[in-house]
Amino acid sequence: MRENTVKKIWARGEAVVNGWLSIPSSFAAEVMAHQGFDSLTVDMQHGVVDYQTAVTMLQAVSTTRVIPLARVPWNDPALLMKILDAGVYGVICPMINTRAQAEALVGACKYAPRGYRSWGPVRASIYGGADYGDHANEDLIVMPMIETAEAVKNIDEILRVPGIDAVYVGPSDLSLTLGCKPRLDQTDPPVVEAQQKIVEACKRHGVAAGIHNATAAYAQKMIAAGYQFVTLASDSRFMAAKATEEVAVIRKTGVKAGTLPAY
Amino acid sequence: MRENTVKKIWARGEAVVNGWLSIPSSFAAEVMAHQGFDSLTVDMQHGVVDYQTAVTMLQAVSTTRVIPLARVPWNDPALLMKILDAGVYGVICPMINTRAQAEALVGACKYAPRGYRSWGPVRASIYGGADYGDHANEDLIVMPMIETAEAVKNIDEILRVPGIDAVYVGPSDLSLTLGCKPRLDQTDPPVVEAQQKIVEACKRHGVAAGIHNATAAYAQKMIAAGYQFVTLASDSRFMAAKATEEVAVIRKTGVKAGTLPAY
Amino acid sequence: MRENTVKKIWARGEAVVNGWLSIPSSFAAEVMAHQGFDSLTVDMQHGVVDYQTAVTMLQAVSTTRVIPLARVPWNDPALLMKILDAGVYGVICPMINTRAQAEALVGACKYAPRGYRSWGPVRASIYGGADYGDHANEDLIVMPMIETAEAVKNIDEILRVPGIDAVYVGPSDLSLTLGCKPRLDQTDPPVVEAQQKIVEACKRHGVAAGIHNATAAYAQKMIAAGYQFVTLASDSRFMAAKATEEVAVIRKTGVKAGTLPAY
Amino acid sequence: MRENTVKKIWARGEAVVNGWLSIPSSFAAEVMAHQGFDSLTVDMQHGVVDYQTAVTMLQAVSTTRVIPLARVPWNDPALLMKILDAGVYGVICPMINTRAQAEALVGACKYAPRGYRSWGPVRASIYGGADYGDHANEDLIVMPMIETAEAVKNIDEILRVPGIDAVYVGPSDLSLTLGCKPRLDQTDPPVVEAQQKIVEACKRHGVAAGIHNATAAYAQKMIAAGYQFVTLASDSRFMAAKATEEVAVIRKTGVKAGTLPAY
Amino acid sequence: MRENTVKKIWARGEAVVNGWLSIPSSFAAEVMAHQGFDSLTVDMQHGVVDYQTAVTMLQAVSTTRVIPLARVPWNDPALLMKILDAGVYGVICPMINTRAQAEALVGACKYAPRGYRSWGPVRASIYGGADYGDHANEDLIVMPMIETAEAVKNIDEILRVPGIDAVYVGPSDLSLTLGCKPRLDQTDPPVVEAQQKIVEACKRHGVAAGIHNATAAYAQKMIAAGYQFVTLASDSRFMAAKATEEVAVIRKTGVKAGTLPAY
Amino acid sequence: MRENTVKKIWARGEAVVNGWLSIPSSFAAEVMAHQGFDSLTVDMQHGVVDYQTAVTMLQAVSTTRVIPLARVPWNDPALLMKILDAGVYGVICPMINTRAQAEALVGACKYAPRGYRSWGPVRASIYGGADYGDHANEDLIVMPMIETAEAVKNIDEILRVPGIDAVYVGPSDLSLTLGCKPRLDQTDPPVVEAQQKIVEACKRHGVAAGIHNATAAYAQKMIAAGYQFVTLASDSRFMAAKATEEVAVIRKTGVKAGTLPAY
Repeated sequence: MRENTVKKIWARGEAVVNGWLSIPSSFAAEVMAHQGFDSLTVDMQHGVVDYQTAVTMLQAVSTTRVIPLARVPWNDPALLMKILDAGVYGVICPMINTRAQAEALVGACKYAPRGYRSWGPVRASIYGGADYGDHANEDLIVMPMIETAEAVKNIDEILRVPGIDAVYVGPSDLSLTLGCKPRLDQTDPPVVEAQQKIVEACKRHGVAAGIHNATAAYAQKMIAAGYQFVTLASDSRFMAAKATEEVAVIRKTGVKAGTLPAY
Repeated sequence: MRENTVKKIWARGEAVVNGWLSIPSSFAAEVMAHQGFDSLTVDMQHGVVDYQTAVTMLQAVSTTRVIPLARVPWNDPALLMKILDAGVYGVICPMINTRAQAEALVGACKYAPRGYRSWGPVRASIYGGADYGDHANEDLIVMPMIETAEAVKNIDEILRVPGIDAVYVGPSDLSLTLGCKPRLDQTDPPVVEAQQKIVEACKRHGVAAGIHNATAAYAQKMIAAGYQFVTLASDSRFMAAKATEEVAVIRKTGVKAGTLPAY
Repeated sequence: MRENTVKKIWARGEAVVNGWLSIPSSFAAEVMAHQGFDSLTVDMQHGVVDYQTAVTMLQAVSTTRVIPLARVPWNDPALLMKILDAGVYGVICPMINTRAQAEALVGACKYAPRGYRSWGPVRASIYGGADYGDHANEDLIVMPMIETAEAVKNIDEILRVPGIDAVYVGPSDLSLTLGCKPRLDQTDPPVVEAQQKIVEACKRHGVAAGIHNATAAYAQKMIAAGYQFVTLASDSRFMAAKATEEVAVIRKTGVKAGTLPAY
Repeated sequence: MRENTVKKIWARGEAVVNGWLSIPSSFAAEVMAHQGFDSLTVDMQHGVVDYQTAVTMLQAVSTTRVIPLARVPWNDPALLMKILDAGVYGVICPMINTRAQAEALVGACKYAPRGYRSWGPVRASIYGGADYGDHANEDLIVMPMIETAEAVKNIDEILRVPGIDAVYVGPSDLSLTLGCKPRLDQTDPPVVEAQQKIVEACKRHGVAAGIHNATAAYAQKMIAAGYQFVTLASDSRFMAAKATEEVAVIRKTGVKAGTLPAY
Repeated sequence: MRENTVKKIWARGEAVVNGWLSIPSSFAAEVMAHQGFDSLTVDMQHGVVDYQTAVTMLQAVSTTRVIPLARVPWNDPALLMKILDAGVYGVICPMINTRAQAEALVGACKYAPRGYRSWGPVRASIYGGADYGDHANEDLIVMPMIETAEAVKNIDEILRVPGIDAVYVGPSDLSLTLGCKPRLDQTDPPVVEAQQKIVEACKRHGVAAGIHNATAAYAQKMIAAGYQFVTLASDSRFMAAKATEEVAVIRKTGVKAGTLPAY
Repeated sequence: MRENTVKKIWARGEAVVNGWLSIPSSFAAEVMAHQGFDSLTVDMQHGVVDYQTAVTMLQAVSTTRVIPLARVPWNDPALLMKILDAGVYGVICPMINTRAQAEALVGACKYAPRGYRSWGPVRASIYGGADYGDHANEDLIVMPMIETAEAVKNIDEILRVPGIDAVYVGPSDLSLTLGCKPRLDQTDPPVVEAQQKIVEACKRHGVAAGIHNATAAYAQKMIAAGYQFVTLASDSRFMAAKATEEVAVIRKTGVKAGTLPAY
């Protein structure tokens, strides 16, 4: 089976630089796959991406060595199994707040006897290789999101569930449930503390900690704090940010046409 | 009919800041429509965009006041008429090198008796309004590309064709035909001179000059030189550029995870 | 945040005229958005529309001031949150029969602390505006369907759930569960009585009542009965009805060609 | 080969009632295929329909006995051959003004030795049957549009080209080239006269005459005048017309909610 | 209502030959519909097919007399009802292991009072006919998958649920839960025995037994064993198998070009 | 630039085994890319594939080392340049019958000064590499189809055009123009002779000869005759052939269910 290099980076004690795909386009995904990320996550929750488009985006990522991941919309076996069959090497699942939810998640991602994932890796075995079935339970990453006050409270319970390789912090939802404004790159103390607690719990349990960031600057701080999976903004945020910057350059000097007589 | 504000900006002697859409996605287009551009051009030539997708992109642009334009793949009446019917307020047409080509282009964009555009503004009259037919010949922009040595030689012939509102310089093709490397933001003297000749000819003929730029910095120079329609890079270039910048920030400091014991 | 004019109409004590989108096409949606409706509902339950297509339809509706709504296929947080993120200003949710179901529905539509909607209004904040997060809990409409005998029995329990702005009557399912034939514009006494009970309960609880109608004539009666949200047939029903009418005109006079000798 | 019933109707001296598909949706096409038309034409010129979507629409039409036709965007062999391969039983081609254009059109639609259509009826032989190749030259309909003053002048020249089965009048373009306002159901004398001339010429040459109509009432007059192929409005026009009618019914009586106290 | 010939074949004591659609393409589906199958199942679970594409595939199947079925991704009312509305004549549902799951499945597929399927057969009544609602509960097939050790244990409980017409064996998942390697055309004794138990139970309960096979040879054995619904491989497996065979023929003799001097 | 291994195989005097993609699906394309072909050609002429879908198919092929090619619908610069920009490593162009047509074809595929291809390899430079522009004129394959009696007559004229790397024989069209029935794997003497003449001319001019075959058996004969590029049937033909074979196996033994009492 094709190697899951995300796990290898983690094993070396290093951090994975993850990109985020919200634009429903295999072309945008392919462009993103050439910008130096270790992995790319198709966001099927808040991104504007449905399954049928996601498949073409995964194919586009597969033209490179970048590891394809997906965030599913919810902890739902239908969605989890279908995107695993499409060949992702890991799933990020929102709103895992209890041990029972974590167990259901892991179960949906593992073939019997470890879980109840249904057999049929139609594209996954093309991407991963003919021996996909022998290694999938071991190699694919299951990554619940820790993004509520409740989940932070239950963090040890959750991390004790066998088969959880990493967790992913959603700072905006975490903020909301802690009574703060929803945003990334948080500096509000309750959120900062929760983020710290999570990474510490991960270290205790030998699980990688991941987090979504708005900027590389904040992501660096998170790496320094022990996070081993940092997402940088997203495809559409990058596009918008650069467009805004460039338009601002033009606008600030005015757009009067030059010295020649006007049309 | 909804006003074509591009023409209004030109009439004030100012320059239009144009964005460029290469990603086949109405979501990407809608995001771009909120970044401050005056107009957005769906690139059906070198962009990864076909007609059916282009329509959804034009709808996305139409959620704002940004003026929708398209570059067609070639000087072909089928393509020109079909995208005009979809509601663009102007077309950019590649490789117009002779007066006859310019006349064919204008003819395809104007209803009889000024041309041979076929009647059927199915979406255009939704976007433009019920009186679209009364104003289309006057209000829609026809913008041949001047992008070869031959076109530069024939520039006065071409600009004399009634119905040409502006021209658009493709610096890469212009470079190739002048024996230079294809690139934007040119500094090679033969291309710089040609770009200067074109804008001067436009001024003589009362036609707006447009040009594709890689950066806002170069676009500013072009405005200073008299260009009144400047494109800044493109959606996918913006996305790639920002992604590269941010990944580089992380990579240059290493991605070793922090001081806590590694997973 | 862009105003939710549906709520404003209700506040004036008037009725909203709603259109219904079953055809999976952004062009059809845009045409419908120009026919005078106050709101348009993308039907993701019985309509032939999936999420990816629905987004383009919402964009098409957003080219106008018509308020975009969606009916989700089921009371499922994944579906509810994803279409809210896509920018609808209200959701209609089928088969809400108990207080617990109503609470789950409201919870999925409200950010913490009022509910458990996950943060990420990727398109919604483009459509609604940058302050979307400050107003979404208040401004977006949650509209459970009351369409079974059980729901009618539990109507007061359901309407007591905070956050329910309106209910929507599905006459066909209501008919089935009351032992009648499934159809719109009902005259069967059990259904007529249930429809009356529902609107009365709504008045008691200060909640708007909505209903699906086959014809404007019946919708008028419903408005007279106190309904404040009336849907008229659907895009495909309109198309089919008019086509049938016109074909019938031709067919009834025969289609023999005229007095000239036949081909 | 499956019978081309359009030709059979013509042979009986009767008129074909044709529907028009502008909405890019196989569902809309299937609904239209159940409204009683003899044939349905996918409009790839002014309709919002590209090839890939057109194929699914043709499949939808093929679920019934309605004969599938297409209008191509232009007299271009690539477009003509590709949609013939997709299984249409006839093509309508815009802007045929001269004998040479008519010959080029026929040539693109006929296999050697009668023309230069390239072999590869990939879907056409599924729809038509295994013996498609033996009958295609004979059974498929070639229908140039007569829609300019020039075409009317050259009508006999055009109709003399072997292989032309029918012509199709585009009243809007005909109006424009005759100095009238572009519209259907014309009453302006120059257009009415031209329409009459065309049908008379068709009778002389044993060719069926077709025309696009806004209403069944006008279509009846055209049938009485000898036209044997009448199109009624279009899918999107039907939808918009009926929606407008129904909304008007509601609006004219006001939309004040009923006698119960308002929400 | 159009007859469900699958039920008729079963009533004659014969076996249905079923094809399997994993490729998300209405063209591939139409080609498959001409290869002699009695029914075709769109695989929305492990196939690369989402709802929006599935609709076009069902339309393609509907161009023939082949009966359209679907396998849903999971026992979820939203998915079941939506694909039934799209016009399938039966659903295969994975992982039905208990009586309660079977009851939920049947309930989602039957209109009140037999179940809680919501009314709105938007395409189903086009495909099935205007009287669809009168016969749907009786004529549509509900086919739970028996594919785990637990389901085999509970087989009588499951088959006792009224409204179950058939079961479908997924040999790969059955293998996994019985401690064997996941594959079709099993010869491992535990799986072979389970397959035998299932068909026997079906006979006891008057329910048809179905099974997925890799080859016609194995399917024949299953028919001999009493199975009355046999699937043969799938569209993509057929394509891959034949491609591999043909490439192997070429490769085994080398691909050296002929005796003429090489290019 | 990524190597064009098709040219390398030719240089070794060996034959390329080419697969053919008619199904508009990136999944089908990816499956085909794993069956052992040297190259895969997206058929945009007779295949059911348009540009937007073709891009996703090319991405799917790019997940492997198989070389992506396309057949364009016609000798049209818009189509040729657009698919080259999408990253194909060669184009097959139908109906090249004269030297002038061949020159136009080559011109559209080469950047100035060798031709008039417009610069903008938006996806091609992602697939090929950053130095794509330096090598494209040299490395991309231009492959006119020789498929008419006229083309055979003009074969030396055509092959003399600089920039033609190979020709591709379309046996069906060749058959038609030689008065034979259109089919592959021809044995009719006039076609067999023409096929022989073509390969001999190719050898004289140092150009590779290619041909479309129905079976590997015939392809082997063509290789023996000197052809260096042999296509085997197509994706949909493979699928249909295997399906037919397997269904026949079942049907010939009957589909009576086994010895247990029937349902």
